[in-house]
Amino acid sequence: MNSYKAPLNDLSFIFNHLLDQEQLAQLSGLEDLSVDLYESILDEAGKFATNILDPINASGDREGLKINQGEVTTPKGFKEAYQQFVQAGWNNISLDPEFGGQGLPYILSTAVNEIMMGANKSFVMCSGLTIGAIEAISHAASDELKQKYLPKLVSGEWGGTMNLTEPGAGSDVGALKTKAIEQADGSYRIHGQKIFITFGEHDFTDNIIHLVLARLPDAPEGVRGISLFLVPKFLVNEDGSLGERNDVRCVSIEHKLGIHASPTCVMAYGDDEGAIGYLVGEKNKGLAAMFVMMNMARLTVGMEGVALTERSYQAALDYARERVQGVDVETAKPVAIIEHADVRRMLLTMKAQVEAMRSLSLFIAQAQDMSFRHADMNVRKHQQGLVDLLIPVFKAWATETALKTTTLGIQVHGGLGFIEETGVAQYLRDAVISVIYEGTTGIQAADLVGRKIVKDQGKNLAVLIGLMKETLAETQASAQLTDIAKEFAAAIQVLEDNSQLIAAQFMQSTKQALSISVPYLMLVGIVVGAWQHAKSASKAEELLASPSENTAFLTAKIETARFYHRVILSEIYGLAHTVRSAGDVITEFKDSYFGE
Amino acid sequence: MNSYKAPLNDLSFIFNHLLDQEQLAQLSGLEDLSVDLYESILDEAGKFATNILDPINASGDREGLKINQGEVTTPKGFKEAYQQFVQAGWNNISLDPEFGGQGLPYILSTAVNEIMMGANKSFVMCSGLTIGAIEAISHAASDELKQKYLPKLVSGEWGGTMNLTEPGAGSDVGALKTKAIEQADGSYRIHGQKIFITFGEHDFTDNIIHLVLARLPDAPEGVRGISLFLVPKFLVNEDGSLGERNDVRCVSIEHKLGIHASPTCVMAYGDDEGAIGYLVGEKNKGLAAMFVMMNMARLTVGMEGVALTERSYQAALDYARERVQGVDVETAKPVAIIEHADVRRMLLTMKAQVEAMRSLSLFIAQAQDMSFRHADMNVRKHQQGLVDLLIPVFKAWATETALKTTTLGIQVHGGLGFIEETGVAQYLRDAVISVIYEGTTGIQAADLVGRKIVKDQGKNLAVLIGLMKETLAETQASAQLTDIAKEFAAAIQVLEDNSQLIAAQFMQSTKQALSISVPYLMLVGIVVGAWQHAKSASKAEELLASPSENTAFLTAKIETARFYHRVILSEIYGLAHTVRSAGDVITEFKDSYFGE
Repeated sequence: MNSYKAPLNDLSFIFNHLLDQEQLAQLSGLEDLSVDLYESILDEAGKFATNILDPINASGDREGLKINQGEVTTPKGFKEAYQQFVQAGWNNISLDPEFGGQGLPYILSTAVNEIMMGANKSFVMCSGLTIGAIEAISHAASDELKQKYLPKLVSGEWGGTMNLTEPGAGSDVGALKTKAIEQADGSYRIHGQKIFITFGEHDFTDNIIHLVLARLPDAPEGVRGISLFLVPKFLVNEDGSLGERNDVRCVSIEHKLGIHASPTCVMAYGDDEGAIGYLVGEKNKGLAAMFVMMNMARLTVGMEGVALTERSYQAALDYARERVQGVDVETAKPVAIIEHADVRRMLLTMKAQVEAMRSLSLFIAQAQDMSFRHADMNVRKHQQGLVDLLIPVFKAWATETALKTTTLGIQVHGGLGFIEETGVAQYLRDAVISVIYEGTTGIQAADLVGRKIVKDQGKNLAVLIGLMKETLAETQASAQLTDIAKEFAAAIQVLEDNSQLIAAQFMQSTKQALSISVPYLMLVGIVVGAWQHAKSASKAEELLASPSENTAFLTAKIETARFYHRVILSEIYGLAHTVRSAGDVITEFKDSYFGE
Repeated sequence: MNSYKAPLNDLSFIFNHLLDQEQLAQLSGLEDLSVDLYESILDEAGKFATNILDPINASGDREGLKINQGEVTTPKGFKEAYQQFVQAGWNNISLDPEFGGQGLPYILSTAVNEIMMGANKSFVMCSGLTIGAIEAISHAASDELKQKYLPKLVSGEWGGTMNLTEPGAGSDVGALKTKAIEQADGSYRIHGQKIFITFGEHDFTDNIIHLVLARLPDAPEGVRGISLFLVPKFLVNEDGSLGERNDVRCVSIEHKLGIHASPTCVMAYGDDEGAIGYLVGEKNKGLAAMFVMMNMARLTVGMEGVALTERSYQAALDYARERVQGVDVETAKPVAIIEHADVRRMLLTMKAQVEAMRSLSLFIAQAQDMSFRHADMNVRKHQQGLVDLLIPVFKAWATETALKTTTLGIQVHGGLGFIEETGVAQYLRDAVISVIYEGTTGIQAADLVGRKIVKDQGKNLAVLIGLMKETLAETQASAQLTDIAKEFAAAIQVLEDNSQLIAAQFMQSTKQALSISVPYLMLVGIVVGAWQHAKSASKAEELLASPSENTAFLTAKIETARFYHRVILSEIYGLAHTVRSAGDVITEFKDSYFGE
């Protein structure tokens, strides 16, 4: 099995040439930062990923988790790696310095996240969920709760979890039934069962702080009657020391297709006298507190698609260069399989997809940084609009794409890819859940069409298309990029036409529009990916004028963009045909037609 | 977990209305057979699959295989099920009656195969490989070998294997190194290692007959120097009783992504004095003997895609009807998730794909029956041409499609789909290998373009397109099917244009043509699927005129065909764009551009 290498060259290109470092350096709190600093941090992250996390990825997958009387043991080496991870501060890059975070921008934590997840997705989920808990507490909790819990969550001394799902309440979180009863001292007693709780129990930390959605006895039905509670595994004394064990336990862990080293727990709250919890934010406003972190959580899940595509690509590339099999169709000489045209197509597909996704992820992270830190409130709003529009697109497109790319990674290996010891099957297994959690692809598509396009009257989409047209103009100005410019121009037109079409359809029949919302979302994702490649190609072309630059790398960026535009981008013509032709064929199909 | 149900309604429709029963009944050896007989056999096959094979599918996956000192133990219940399987004769439906087979047509064994594999893919692989060995022996071996080995292989008393692959010889079988040395008595001593040997060792049968490709000392290099040998696990005495243990053993079994109950063995031949083997056919003509069975083996692998799509669809459909989650966007009432437009799109995709694949598989099987049994040699040749053309298309298209459909089956289940106990993850895991073995998708595509279209000068393709145009005319004649006719007519045009384009490109640059051969193959597969649906819709429309028929089922066939033509078929516009635009963008991409 090959060793994971952080994609530092590509990240360096994006940080230096695609992100707007001039603007970023003017943002509040980022004034002293430079690309050099970012690069040195990414370099260190790469070393950590390669040396500490990658070596326990396959072994963690094989060994899996153990549960004994509610105590979960993570695979060999994970606990020690976690100590090193938090000591180095990889867990709190972008968190608030007030509670011990490093206050660095999302562009950096997003890139670091890709690197760490590329080396070991299961491992990173613990701190990922903890960050979610921290953000919810930061946004909604009382100062007392913040002071008591945030410092140790931010330092990584304690872990955090998010408890939404119940057996009868998955995508429809409003259906949840867990109860919270107020006590005389202002605390609550929580009773109920939560499922699919990532790192709900583990041996990384001494305490685990659960954020739990529950219902007060007199709460309204549905999403307007949900409150958020903080429920520590061990109660915390006034002096910060650990007190009694709370009435919450991990009943079982799931046996899953992938992410074998990430415990997915069934959590029982209040089997005895009730788990003690503290209200976070206002009563019945729990969902709002949770939704604060949704954009960032969805960005993180999308990054899983980027990370696993990169990991699978590296394995496939190494193998394709080493493995000699068959002869070249022109020279009739034995060749490494990378020389076979179809293997090359598969590798290029993986490479072009991962670069498009990575570049988009950092564009979104930059927009998020600007929306949080820019001096001008109008700029903040403008940037947040782009984030809101692009998040569902990125989450669904990157994770669905990863299913295809990690499958290609297996295929490049031939029969060996099917053998678990080869390692590439794990990347597919680990990738499957990403299309489901934090909202399935269908839910992202409904969000995109209903809330981000129709409700917004297409304003943010118009902004996005405006940005694409700026890039198009740059591409059109280069004599070397005429094929890219031609394909990209056509693609923008397809995007505009289909967006108008689906918005109009949504007004006529919401259901019909939703029935083709996933094909439409994928179309948007693929065009946005083309935009990233067009930007890269333009920039690379410009840089090639200077002799000091890395010619091979820049030429590769242009040729990869060319491949994306002439091969990957083609798919939009199929998707557009679906959006145009489907009509009522899905919505009018009767239940009984599906068969017995 | 739901229980597998054989798709008897759809099979009945295909057997009664899409296959040419009049022609079939005139074929040699099939004169006394009727659709009623076929249907009663399929009904029995369905019962066997549901009652015997399905209940041990998930448990077999979980338990897996054990190996101890070269002896492989299959999971609980498998050995007993095998006894029942061969007692009922499910293993030799289409085999030669001379050696105990039932001499029934391929249309029947193909449909039975889908049913059995839908219930338990791992289990069926033992008899699948045995059939391959039987066909090679039947075609090439001496009468003495046939008399000695075929009866017990056909009865299922012994198992058979195919030994091609070696560590350095996968897709390039000509690179194999296993040696065979002739002995004074005319037998051979075999020395070498074979990998990826399906059911190379197991506890189903008392003896296992290995067919092994090896090289004589003076053999020419490459594929022209390969001979085929029969190597029994236990030598067979003159009276048919078992003699000494031969010098062949299973060294290890692979730990795989899927098909956990099917042993994939590393086989060592001749670690001691040499494994005793007998030449099958002529020296250095071993590959030809193996290639005889390739079409049927590839049809079988394609059927795995059909079977697993059907299995995953059944699970997803049951779940989608039971699971209440969220509210209807129009009525705002809680609904089962099948009412959500995107879930419905996923289910319809699975249903439309599996029906297209199933119908094509039986069209190919019918052509094979005609080519083997028709009185007129010209008809035989004509039908064999269709088989040769369609086999690589079906194998690659059906197996690649199954990756998408089994992933959709997981997604319909939401988070539950990722939990192994739910059962649907297994269908994806079991499906992945089908795109690789018996020739990867890239190899099928090269075969299609190079040998089946260019070398053939497009003759068989012209025949196929002629058949499609006949169906188109029928579709155009119906006022109810105008949308299908419109989409199908356009698709045939796209197929013709792109076929000319890739053939022309092949003459100019083989490598460039191969670089887009997979997108082209998928285009062909999708259009051929549209043809099947157009045929079904036409026929269903015609049958609806008679009041005695099952209206709901027939209407569902038409509406499913409509969905296929308006949604699934769209994909060809993306693939066609790739075929047109790719040019040299893949072949000119330099090795160094892929990165370090």
